[in-house]
Amino acid sequence: MKPIKALLFDVFGTLVDWRTSVAREVQAMAAHHGKTVDSLAFADAWRAQYQPSMEAIRTGREPFCPLDTLHRKNLDAILPQFALDGLDANARAELNLAWHRLDAWPDVPSGLARMRPSFRLAPCSNGNVSLMVDLARRNDLTWDAILGAEFARDYKPKAVVYLASAAAFDCAPAETMMVAAHTSDLIAAAALGLRTAFVARPDEYGAGGPGEARPRARVDVAVASLTELADCLANGGRGSLNLPD
Amino acid sequence: MKPIKALLFDVFGTLVDWRTSVAREVQAMAAHHGKTVDSLAFADAWRAQYQPSMEAIRTGREPFCPLDTLHRKNLDAILPQFALDGLDANARAELNLAWHRLDAWPDVPSGLARMRPSFRLAPCSNGNVSLMVDLARRNDLTWDAILGAEFARDYKPKAVVYLASAAAFDCAPAETMMVAAHTSDLIAAAALGLRTAFVARPDEYGAGGPGEARPRARVDVAVASLTELADCLANGGRGSLNLPD
Repeated sequence: MKPIKALLFDVFGTLVDWRTSVAREVQAMAAHHGKTVDSLAFADAWRAQYQPSMEAIRTGREPFCPLDTLHRKNLDAILPQFALDGLDANARAELNLAWHRLDAWPDVPSGLARMRPSFRLAPCSNGNVSLMVDLARRNDLTWDAILGAEFARDYKPKAVVYLASAAAFDCAPAETMMVAAHTSDLIAAAALGLRTAFVARPDEYGAGGPGEARPRARVDVAVASLTELADCLANGGRGSLNLPD
Repeated sequence: MKPIKALLFDVFGTLVDWRTSVAREVQAMAAHHGKTVDSLAFADAWRAQYQPSMEAIRTGREPFCPLDTLHRKNLDAILPQFALDGLDANARAELNLAWHRLDAWPDVPSGLARMRPSFRLAPCSNGNVSLMVDLARRNDLTWDAILGAEFARDYKPKAVVYLASAAAFDCAPAETMMVAAHTSDLIAAAALGLRTAFVARPDEYGAGGPGEARPRARVDVAVASLTELADCLANGGRGSLNLPD
C-alpha cells in the first residue's frame, strides 16, 4: 500500500453546516426587508437546486461557470416560492453570499490543524475559489491549495475533478484520500483509485433528515468527526469506526 | 480609485532567491556523485531555458503542461554542458525538485504575514501548484489560494493568467495588485487594469547582474522589500520609494 500523502475534502455538509448557516442568513435578509420566511425550508429548497444545476455543465451542454453563478440562478428560481421575489438585484447578490458565510462543524478547525503537518490538504469541492477562501478565513482553516471544481473546470462527480486535484499535489490517486460525508462522492473517488474516508454528518439536513450516519458502500475509513480521522490516520489508517447509531 | 482587495505575487526572483538555492542543490547532487560543477553557472544556464521553454505553450503550438515538466526538459538539455549527463533518471527527477526547495528572501515571510489580514494573497507564478505548495511549507508562507499558470492553464505574460487569478478572488483587475521584481510582468498586468508594485531584487542574478534595481516603466508603487510594501499599503498606497541605488 502506498502511503497517503494528500487529503482532499468535500466541503458542503462534510466540513460546514450549510443548512443552519444559510437559514440564518436568509432569516436576517428577510427581517431586514420586513418579511418572514421559513428559513430552513428556504435553505433546503435552495440546496435542492444544487445537483440539477450542475448537470448542464457535467454533460458539456454549457461551459463551466463557478458555483456562485449557479447559486444565483437557483436563488432567482426559488424566491417566488417564498414570496421574496421583491428582493432587488443588490439584495439577491448579498444573499447569494450566504454560501460564503457558512460555519464549520465544531471538530473541523482543530481536526484539520492536526492533520496538516503530515498531509497536503485541499478542499475538493464544487464551490468556487472565492467561496472556499471566505470559508477558510471565517473558520480558520489552513489549506495548501484550493482545488476542486473551479481548478478542474468541471463538477464532481466527474472524474477530472478528483484526478486533477490529486495531480496538482503530485500525488497518484492511491496516495490521495477523499474525505466526504456522502457515499456518492466516495464511490466516484474510489472508482479512480483514491482512498476514501467517510465522515458521518447525520444532522446535515437536520435531525431525522437524510444525512448519512453510515456509508452505503465500502470505504477505507469511516469516522464520526475529523478528530477521529486524525486519530485514525496517526494510527496508520487503522481504526475508529466509532459511528453514531 | 477602487480599494485594493487582493495581492498577486510573482515568485521566482520576487519572493524566493532561486539562483543560490538551485546552485546549492546542484552542488549537493554533483558532490553526491563525485563530480564538481560551477553551480551558479549551472543555475543560470537552467534558468536561461525558462522563458524559451514556455513559448510553445503561449503560442498554442503545444498543450499546457506544468512547469516541473518544462524544468525537467530544460535540465536534460543542459546537463551535457556541465558534464553531468551521466546522471540517471532518478537523479534527474530528484535534482528537478531543486525548484521546490528555494529559500525566500528574508523579508518575505514576515511581510506576507503583515499583509494577510487586509488582503487576499496568492502567488501568480508560472510555477505549478505542487511547487508553490512546497515553497510555502518550506518558507512558512500562508496563501489564500494558489493561482497563476496551472490554474489558468497558460503562462505569463499571457493575459488569461492575470485575469483568471483576479477573477478567482472575485476581484476586478483594478481591485488587484500584481507584485513583481520584473518590469515586464508589471507591464503585462498594468495593460489589463491591475495595479502594480515593483519590488527591487537587484541581486536576483548575483551582485552586478541584471536584476532590476528600479522599474523600467511607470508602476503604482516601487519598494525595496515586502516590509516596505506592507508599510506603503497600510499608508493607503502612498509611500516609500526607498529603492536601492
